[in-house]
Amino acid sequence: MEKPYGITMGDASGIGPEILLKAWRQGEIRFPVVVYGDLEALNFYNDLLGYGIRFRSITSSSEYSSDGLNVIDLGILRRAEVTPGQLNAKSGHAAREYVVAATRAAMAGTLNAIVTLPMNKEATELTDPRFTGHTELVAEVCGVEDVTIMLVSDRLIVTHVSTHVSLAEAIRRVKRERILKIIQLTCERVEQLKGRARVAVAGLNPHAGENGLFGDEEIREIRPAVEEARSHGLHVEGPFPPDTLFHKTVNKQEFDAVVCMYHDQGHIPVKLLDFEGGVNVTLGLPIIRTSVDHGTAFDIAGQGVASIFSFIRALKLAAQLANLSAIL
Amino acid sequence: MEKPYGITMGDASGIGPEILLKAWRQGEIRFPVVVYGDLEALNFYNDLLGYGIRFRSITSSSEYSSDGLNVIDLGILRRAEVTPGQLNAKSGHAAREYVVAATRAAMAGTLNAIVTLPMNKEATELTDPRFTGHTELVAEVCGVEDVTIMLVSDRLIVTHVSTHVSLAEAIRRVKRERILKIIQLTCERVEQLKGRARVAVAGLNPHAGENGLFGDEEIREIRPAVEEARSHGLHVEGPFPPDTLFHKTVNKQEFDAVVCMYHDQGHIPVKLLDFEGGVNVTLGLPIIRTSVDHGTAFDIAGQGVASIFSFIRALKLAAQLANLSAIL
Repeated sequence: MEKPYGITMGDASGIGPEILLKAWRQGEIRFPVVVYGDLEALNFYNDLLGYGIRFRSITSSSEYSSDGLNVIDLGILRRAEVTPGQLNAKSGHAAREYVVAATRAAMAGTLNAIVTLPMNKEATELTDPRFTGHTELVAEVCGVEDVTIMLVSDRLIVTHVSTHVSLAEAIRRVKRERILKIIQLTCERVEQLKGRARVAVAGLNPHAGENGLFGDEEIREIRPAVEEARSHGLHVEGPFPPDTLFHKTVNKQEFDAVVCMYHDQGHIPVKLLDFEGGVNVTLGLPIIRTSVDHGTAFDIAGQGVASIFSFIRALKLAAQLANLSAIL
Repeated sequence: MEKPYGITMGDASGIGPEILLKAWRQGEIRFPVVVYGDLEALNFYNDLLGYGIRFRSITSSSEYSSDGLNVIDLGILRRAEVTPGQLNAKSGHAAREYVVAATRAAMAGTLNAIVTLPMNKEATELTDPRFTGHTELVAEVCGVEDVTIMLVSDRLIVTHVSTHVSLAEAIRRVKRERILKIIQLTCERVEQLKGRARVAVAGLNPHAGENGLFGDEEIREIRPAVEEARSHGLHVEGPFPPDTLFHKTVNKQEFDAVVCMYHDQGHIPVKLLDFEGGVNVTLGLPIIRTSVDHGTAFDIAGQGVASIFSFIRALKLAAQLANLSAIL
């Protein structure tokens, strides 16, 4: 039997649980899946939204059967502790535990991939002050450091030298070695997805610094990284002026992906082109992990109105990557 | 008689002169205009491209007549000195002089507005090491300092707290007083153009800093500026997470314009949505100045293939602003 995919329920105060349930109820989950979460929280939303979904509580992914929605119940949250839309230290802690459990199961080889629903950084920090982010947590459990987020939408694929750090810190992280690593990870995954990888690297500064007139990171760090990647046979070009590069990539299709120097450089064009449908893939992990491209959206939690589109795409992309990995 | 509009020819090594001639030949220049440039350079491109345009050399915009393309000939470049596509110190210097002359004429009240074709920063710096940018030059001649670029396209209007500086310097310029000034200039001009101004202010950091988790410029500088602007009765909101704000503005039409914290934050979405059609308007000047939203494009200069679209829109926007100013 095919191994199941692990889904983490996300912060119980946010839209993660209801997206999962809505997608299941609509028959959009077409792969064997095991949910890592809290059964009482799932039942809370199931009743709140009147979905009538039947759960099957299991203790290990090896017990998976196609009868009902399989849940590995971590037993952390009580029903009365579920507070839709309210920052909640306990649900922040619980969300962390779902991710740890699912990642460990994937590392143990019992899951094809994991697909994660949103955590809330502020909530998790209340009980884990060391918490720096969802992706960083997965990386830590996997025992790796050099990871990055690839954002995949219909029309544009971007990766990032850094993500959830201040813009000032992002500039400090524009370093040759890190850029080279991100170029390599990007080429590898894009090649896998598209069968080719023509990768563009964005500059950091406006006009890519205009030959050092405003900023020299392009000269000191980015260009040497691009040249080294090319010397390894990778099809990569840059650094390009960031403002015109996305037009070249999206409208003129000159490249298959763009390596971005900071979070918003890649996120602004992707979210403008495809607001609901973007999917995150973590690169650099020993396991496959995809994630929705949105947060906990406390403002609409519990209403059943959240879009399931990014989640469905994250599931499909996980399956695509798992199948490709199985073939290769 | 209506006052003419001043057009600066731009760097003679770039695509400025040919865009002007092509637009004229195609009958797209439907306002009285006076060109500030070099007649020998214009004749060079006129012959090169076989356009057969007839020029009328005048010495002051008051001599304008509708007979031929009126040119105030600064007499700097000789025909043999015109080098399409080649960085050229003399054409860089000449481009500067066209802008100084046109700006002075506008300041003297003899022009309705000025529309500028591209200079090349590197070329002009060869003879003017103090040169920091086209917009800064216009501001200096006008005797003002607090200016900014508004980028106008069909679907999105953005302004910028800073533009042609390194990203590190852009972060240092995210200061309450400057942001407030840009909000005020933006509201004023957007109100004039659209009859209303619902203005959004972008954050600097990813997720607008997520309550100080990564970066505190939103808390220290941006939010206080927004609050002060609101206390003056302006319809302004923010700071918003930059990656989702353009979706809200463009696709959901929640705002009429976005105040951006740095060059690429505004330029990436505008150029992705409307690569050829963007127009720059300088805000904070005592005169009206619009500009094409592209550079000298040395790689295609002299071929007659450059798009005239941004130039035509810059002319129309200048006329629109001049007429609105005349009415108000």
